[in-house]
Amino acid sequence: MTITMYQASVPAFTQMLGSLAAILTKAEAHATAKKIDPAVLLGARLFPDMLPYTRQIQLTCDFAKNTTARLAGQEPPKWEDKESSFAELQARIGKTLDFLKGYKPAQIDGAEERDVTIPIGGNPTTFKGQRYLVGFALPNFYFHLSAAYAILRHNGIEVGKRDYLGQF
Amino acid sequence: MTITMYQASVPAFTQMLGSLAAILTKAEAHATAKKIDPAVLLGARLFPDMLPYTRQIQLTCDFAKNTTARLAGQEPPKWEDKESSFAELQARIGKTLDFLKGYKPAQIDGAEERDVTIPIGGNPTTFKGQRYLVGFALPNFYFHLSAAYAILRHNGIEVGKRDYLGQF
Repeated sequence: MTITMYQASVPAFTQMLGSLAAILTKAEAHATAKKIDPAVLLGARLFPDMLPYTRQIQLTCDFAKNTTARLAGQEPPKWEDKESSFAELQARIGKTLDFLKGYKPAQIDGAEERDVTIPIGGNPTTFKGQRYLVGFALPNFYFHLSAAYAILRHNGIEVGKRDYLGQF
Repeated sequence: MTITMYQASVPAFTQMLGSLAAILTKAEAHATAKKIDPAVLLGARLFPDMLPYTRQIQLTCDFAKNTTARLAGQEPPKWEDKESSFAELQARIGKTLDFLKGYKPAQIDGAEERDVTIPIGGNPTTFKGQRYLVGFALPNFYFHLSAAYAILRHNGIEVGKRDYLGQF
């Protein structure tokens, strides 16, 4: 009477990255319709020392990619952060979705007891897979996903909770 | 080789509500130090048709409360939304944490196959417990939690990711 580590992770990442891509499409349409320079939206922040929209998308993608790889006992690949257009950000999300498709449930299941070591504030920190997913990886994933959404809402893009939730 | 529905839900709600309360304490200290009327922060929004800080906290609490009750096969209690001060919002978070403490793992475990029916856009929608938790309840919980954080950051409250993550 349980759920698997795969069910608790990859389907959620897939659902939410799908919504991130759909919202990005709406943001591009808004910029085009209002003749807004894409760089303005892609660089938008909620406060000067917060990360801009582009970086929030990259980090959302990376938490999905890195969490999935680590739960499978693998070192995640590093991807360059060099996206500077709507199309390049769409490609980053697409590449992340393809990466997730490369994992079978059997590679992730059983990860609840696997040690995962990551640097936090420069210090290697080891979690059991279950705590890593529930207490660290999912909160971080949703943090950047929601920040990306909030930046767009703050800039007047017409999206709502339904867009954020995606295909649930 | 699995995790339980309890482990995937209540400990995350508890951890993140603890961080929400600690950030709220910092927001109050900021308002006091800068002589900001509490009502200004509590009513702050990222855009005119987005919900204000107080409502984001109430909804974060409600997603924790309602999800836990529904996974246990119970109708969640309805709580009035009448908080209008930092102290009252702290009490709402504390009451939610106490509510979660009232559930034993055995009441939640096994919920992955239990039907959960909720109104979405006015239409009763039925999920299996696992899809309800992973694809709907957690994304919603983190949505409002992150929105509360983003509103404060946008208003210059000095908090960071470590505050958001809480005691992981």
